[in-house]
Amino acid sequence: MRIGIVAPSTPILRETAERVTAIAARDFPGAELVFHPQCFLSHRHFAGDEPTRAAAFLEVANDSGFDALWFARGGYGSCRIAEAVLAELGPAARSKAYLGYSDAGYMLAGLYRAGFERLAHGPMVGDLRREGGEAAIARALAWLTRNERAALEPSLGEAPGAAFNITVFSQLLGTPLEPDLAGHVLMLEDVSEHMYRTDRSLFHITSNPAVRAVAGIRLGRCTEVPDNDPDFGAGEEEVFRYWCGRSGIPYLGRADIGHDAANKIVPFGRSWPQE
Amino acid sequence: MRIGIVAPSTPILRETAERVTAIAARDFPGAELVFHPQCFLSHRHFAGDEPTRAAAFLEVANDSGFDALWFARGGYGSCRIAEAVLAELGPAARSKAYLGYSDAGYMLAGLYRAGFERLAHGPMVGDLRREGGEAAIARALAWLTRNERAALEPSLGEAPGAAFNITVFSQLLGTPLEPDLAGHVLMLEDVSEHMYRTDRSLFHITSNPAVRAVAGIRLGRCTEVPDNDPDFGAGEEEVFRYWCGRSGIPYLGRADIGHDAANKIVPFGRSWPQE
Repeated sequence: MRIGIVAPSTPILRETAERVTAIAARDFPGAELVFHPQCFLSHRHFAGDEPTRAAAFLEVANDSGFDALWFARGGYGSCRIAEAVLAELGPAARSKAYLGYSDAGYMLAGLYRAGFERLAHGPMVGDLRREGGEAAIARALAWLTRNERAALEPSLGEAPGAAFNITVFSQLLGTPLEPDLAGHVLMLEDVSEHMYRTDRSLFHITSNPAVRAVAGIRLGRCTEVPDNDPDFGAGEEEVFRYWCGRSGIPYLGRADIGHDAANKIVPFGRSWPQE
Repeated sequence: MRIGIVAPSTPILRETAERVTAIAARDFPGAELVFHPQCFLSHRHFAGDEPTRAAAFLEVANDSGFDALWFARGGYGSCRIAEAVLAELGPAARSKAYLGYSDAGYMLAGLYRAGFERLAHGPMVGDLRREGGEAAIARALAWLTRNERAALEPSLGEAPGAAFNITVFSQLLGTPLEPDLAGHVLMLEDVSEHMYRTDRSLFHITSNPAVRAVAGIRLGRCTEVPDNDPDFGAGEEEVFRYWCGRSGIPYLGRADIGHDAANKIVPFGRSWPQE
């Protein structure tokens, strides 16, 4: 299968691409990775300016020669091109898989809203650079190439699933990218956010009437939380239980996702192999 | 007139209260400042726990012996009590003035939505501790006691006004605190936010259909912006022009508000002295 890689947010290094290509060649010989040159561009904060990032995404998504689009890396920037990209996606875009998380959540949200069926929250190419990152790359390729059950977040059950970065999800509510998650188990994770910010995001998320229609919320990992002054006095699990309790959203426990190498894959909807 | 001071977010020091009381006694002899003891409490991140903060707000708001409720300080925390407070406000609460900004924006938003008529975005007691903070205190007291025109943000004209911290406004959209600002000039300011965060908040704010009904947006000051790595490559004015342009919201120029001693007062709606 052919996997096209683009970077709607921030760039990756050529060295990272080469190492991930070598892993794929060694362990997933059926997978051909094609890095769009846009992955390595730099324009201000972003991997190229907006027309360039949007064009690269569309070249891969609308090419029936690719079976999957893999997000290179997060950071920030895909919300600036998401609507322009969504307006230009053709039939070939609907039949492929999309895998990413963090800032890629804006794109996944908009694609899910548009009825795309094979979307997943999971590791990206840039995760190679994390501690133990090879495991994240292998998990991503196992899902992309073999739809492997062991790669999936283990709590996935009968209800449809969806997963997002907390801040990203908060910031797409009420926008043209917001998907309908009624009846879904919503898994949320974050990185590098003060606990008061996570608390504030949970106020925003759980106060939203559309979000209150989810089947429940699961808490992924919140890592690299900066110290608060004064100390916030509560951890992420207490924050989630508090806002779920106030809003009447069932708190369903932990999810095995996060900004780390252990990040499991959460397909959106019911697109995983049923037993 | 009697001005009651409460702290729905974070506490102030007694020394700050004493100095502000001395300024009022010297320059605004008609004003009696009454600091609710809750202003000095500390519970985790907050000025007391939630029942205590809510009760203090209600004691002052529902007491017809007070002409105004002045917010002590921002920080974070009023979104946790806003709905409980709003549900218990009685007739005496509607006839008084409310003055604050930053985290107090959650309360002002909910009060405006509830039809309260004398609300303003402007300096708080804690601003005394800023450089030149005495001027901010004098401006607040000039508005509270004399409704003084010179205290007001100078661009205020025929359209109704409203002002918020960018992050706070973003995080109250879609919640029960969101006010209807159709036809309003919306002024926005922020402090200590990376420029990519401000850009992301502007995506969220200007993508919201209800916000697109405003008469226009004015940009206050964005101060203490942490360095981005890589550099974001655009300042706040470029960010505002970009998102206003994309969303069709008129960008009306700068507003003389911000997290500083020069922060002018923006009454909500049309509650300022007309010429």
